[in-house]
Amino acid sequence: MLSEFDLIKQYFRRARAGNAVLGIGDDCALLAPTPGMQTAISTDMLIEGRHFFAGADPRMLGHKCLAVNLSDLAAMGARPVGFTLGLSLPGVDPEWLEAFSNGMFALADLHDCELVGGDTTRGPLAVCITVFGEVAPGHALRRDAARAGHDIWISGTLGDARLALAGYWKELAIDREQHALAATRMHMPEPRVALGRALAALPVAHAALDISDGLVGDLAHILDASKVGATLGVDALPPGPALARQPLALRRRFTLAGGDDYELCFTVPSSQRDAVLAAAAMAHTPVTRVGTIDAQPGLRLVDAAGKALQMDVKGWDHFGEE
Amino acid sequence: MLSEFDLIKQYFRRARAGNAVLGIGDDCALLAPTPGMQTAISTDMLIEGRHFFAGADPRMLGHKCLAVNLSDLAAMGARPVGFTLGLSLPGVDPEWLEAFSNGMFALADLHDCELVGGDTTRGPLAVCITVFGEVAPGHALRRDAARAGHDIWISGTLGDARLALAGYWKELAIDREQHALAATRMHMPEPRVALGRALAALPVAHAALDISDGLVGDLAHILDASKVGATLGVDALPPGPALARQPLALRRRFTLAGGDDYELCFTVPSSQRDAVLAAAAMAHTPVTRVGTIDAQPGLRLVDAAGKALQMDVKGWDHFGEE
Repeated sequence: MLSEFDLIKQYFRRARAGNAVLGIGDDCALLAPTPGMQTAISTDMLIEGRHFFAGADPRMLGHKCLAVNLSDLAAMGARPVGFTLGLSLPGVDPEWLEAFSNGMFALADLHDCELVGGDTTRGPLAVCITVFGEVAPGHALRRDAARAGHDIWISGTLGDARLALAGYWKELAIDREQHALAATRMHMPEPRVALGRALAALPVAHAALDISDGLVGDLAHILDASKVGATLGVDALPPGPALARQPLALRRRFTLAGGDDYELCFTVPSSQRDAVLAAAAMAHTPVTRVGTIDAQPGLRLVDAAGKALQMDVKGWDHFGEE
Repeated sequence: MLSEFDLIKQYFRRARAGNAVLGIGDDCALLAPTPGMQTAISTDMLIEGRHFFAGADPRMLGHKCLAVNLSDLAAMGARPVGFTLGLSLPGVDPEWLEAFSNGMFALADLHDCELVGGDTTRGPLAVCITVFGEVAPGHALRRDAARAGHDIWISGTLGDARLALAGYWKELAIDREQHALAATRMHMPEPRVALGRALAALPVAHAALDISDGLVGDLAHILDASKVGATLGVDALPPGPALARQPLALRRRFTLAGGDDYELCFTVPSSQRDAVLAAAAMAHTPVTRVGTIDAQPGLRLVDAAGKALQMDVKGWDHFGEE
């Protein structure tokens, strides 16, 4: 009989010199913070049937559970340091555990982010990761730092994850290859850690967050926290490669209110466009300028000709009526 | 319709100046570590029907979910700083949320431990807390620090939580008032934070952990990590007030392998008995000397006369056959 402790050792304890003074296996892990740096902390709870499908590929699931947390560090401009894993499993399945931990560690290693503690129990499949990073005081990308006159930028592309979901839900008939292309974005999001860190290093005011619930809903958090408004060029929003082949109405809807994008939305003074492009190049991450922050409250959507658009969009809300 | 964001704001966001530079409401919380201190981190996942009964009192549940995490900080000798909360709920029940958050915050305030981040979602009832504390380098109470000649000590009393469970499970017929007394220990464990910090301040080698899965199973982690053995005086183990009225065989079984005790088990050189008693007095926490660490591997159980006892005991294992 494989005990809880054997489980943790076998799949999650690794013999590597990491960032921790003391890793998994004691009551707590011990980290030695870099002198003068602040600690950034975020947590995400993912539930089977809600955040991922029952029977989801465990390797991709391991990747995604950590990716959504790293995306929060990216959105603060923090350097990843470590994470803890709370894992509730219906049973002990060695193949599943191996694939899940491999997917998770492949991404963790890419970002030099160490698993420092965990708790494994029997129960409905649920994954709760808490991630820690470091950022220099005054350099974190906060939601309350947007100012009138800032440009609004988006990393990468939007909407392919939502398109993939539409395919799974049979909301739309989507070509098989196009669906597979879109599904990659849904299952294997790429946290924009390098871009976040490059933006945090810029010596100007900036706000940022990661787009997980749909751009409109998430941008509203920046507008609320910063007490500003915005004008968004809907047709400037970069659709994912699969969504780009869909009709305009769907492109608009899924780029504005998709969900599961895990791209950064950030605001920077318009005088700093060259600096933003240089930071993006350094981070090997495409960025697109999609609008401006206004003093006037509220969000205004405009088309390519600058004409106002009336659209009914809302964010993805885990307690809302979807 | 109460949205996810409203939920978090209403019950879990509080307007108090705490330890965090930036609290709930951004992509990450920001903490400023005390210069020169190490960060201790632990995480626990609690599932309805596994770690607590379906329909459990939400106020006591809020207390217990944080208490078991603070107990891990106590076992490292760390000062609590903050925690994150991952909460999966079958639905939005304002009364439940109010009671749960009140129970959690009452304990958090007692230990000056601030909620710095969270994630709330719909799903099976599950609570995942990650807790952060601080400890001076070299002072953490590690499992690998037990040495031959150390005394083994226990804080408080053992076994009442297990006795309460036996009552709920109808393994035993227990007097109603006695059961209520025992149940308090099961539902409202008291993390031994003050004792852990006082022990960590002693200028001697020491090992510690918190007893959550039963003394024998947990002590084995110290013995394994420190590569030592131990002799335990079974009848020296302090039973809880309800268990104390039960027959000897049950007292022995539930103090040795109860589960859910959340007391500290720690080892200190025998030359330091007075220092241990002074630390315990300062922390207002009773402690009992219950055995010795030996160079010879393995765990030996002896009775009050020092005679060897053969008992079949095992730790509480969430994947074992219970």
